[in-house]
Amino acid sequence: MDAKDISYAVIKRLPRYHRYLRDLMDEGVERISSGELSRRMHVTASQIRQDLNHFGGFGQQGYGYNVAYLYSEISKILGLDSDHPMIILGAGNLGHTLANYSGFDMCGGRLIGIFDVNPALQGKKIRGVEIRMMKELPEFLRSHRTEIAVLTLPRSYAAEATAILVENGIRAIWNFAHVDLDVPDNVIVENVHLSESLMTLSYNLTEYRKKHEE
Amino acid sequence: MDAKDISYAVIKRLPRYHRYLRDLMDEGVERISSGELSRRMHVTASQIRQDLNHFGGFGQQGYGYNVAYLYSEISKILGLDSDHPMIILGAGNLGHTLANYSGFDMCGGRLIGIFDVNPALQGKKIRGVEIRMMKELPEFLRSHRTEIAVLTLPRSYAAEATAILVENGIRAIWNFAHVDLDVPDNVIVENVHLSESLMTLSYNLTEYRKKHEE
Repeated sequence: MDAKDISYAVIKRLPRYHRYLRDLMDEGVERISSGELSRRMHVTASQIRQDLNHFGGFGQQGYGYNVAYLYSEISKILGLDSDHPMIILGAGNLGHTLANYSGFDMCGGRLIGIFDVNPALQGKKIRGVEIRMMKELPEFLRSHRTEIAVLTLPRSYAAEATAILVENGIRAIWNFAHVDLDVPDNVIVENVHLSESLMTLSYNLTEYRKKHEE
Repeated sequence: MDAKDISYAVIKRLPRYHRYLRDLMDEGVERISSGELSRRMHVTASQIRQDLNHFGGFGQQGYGYNVAYLYSEISKILGLDSDHPMIILGAGNLGHTLANYSGFDMCGGRLIGIFDVNPALQGKKIRGVEIRMMKELPEFLRSHRTEIAVLTLPRSYAAEATAILVENGIRAIWNFAHVDLDVPDNVIVENVHLSESLMTLSYNLTEYRKKHEE
């Protein structure tokens, strides 16, 4: 199965299927019908059939989906079976949190370096990985194959750090800095703008309050 | 201006306008044309005019937008001018990071409690706020007006904690636990599923690699 035959809308739903399938495996469930998966995921059975039939893994009527097979196919499509060497820029609270984040292992992420601008952090270790100074970054990137950079630096440092990453061939940036990064088309940026998420919550709360206090 | 006249698509774009307008204020810019804002934000000027004309704040042709006025109107629509008392459930790495997160202040969030299940943390403080035990949560919610609960507990605790929150009238949950929460319709949930964001990055990286290595 080639991923280019699958629409982006389906791709965006795959991580959620991946999560539910892993839970099923943890529970020892070997196969599941679209109806049962529909009840668990609060998605229509017809949507599930449309999405998952891209991946095969279903037998005759009444058998249902083979959980382990589907999980493995979805993992491959998402690239979770590959090794992604990664670095974290910024060893503050969020950098620490992400360095210890178990989700990386599941996604093939392998932490090989942590960088900061604060000299007090130099040589300290997080999860066995030494904190280096930002000025060492260009040389590090030239000598270590690195695919993903996780950006948790304050926004005032983000543009300069991004320029160094791009110059040295970084392909993907997971951006937690509260700023839009200026990168060429061949560099992938995935933003996690926490404050935008919180503002959406604040908006919905305000609307709810208006409706019920009017 | 009433928010219910504005489409949800526009609402979802407001936090980004809010961020750019604040930057302009920090730079001392008092007014800006849609053309100049378009260059900064990499959005068409026509999109900007459509979005921002909901809020007024623009004078005659050639004047441009009044930055402070627009900023203030957007803040009001998003509910950022209200006080949102909030608690954090989970005092691990992520809970610590969020307790120290400056974005809360900007959104009217006011941290009034932190809860964990680990007795070793009892009585410690983060940012002046004492860590309490989860078993104290129901009584706390009955005696403190609380609007937002930030959920950073491991997923195995998430369902039980959510039930307590809902029973005690919490209106909004900012969910970082890697699980879908089961809540009634009148409770707002905003999910931050980090691993889904990372999987999207992994997918795009894998697709890029396939195209360029084929």
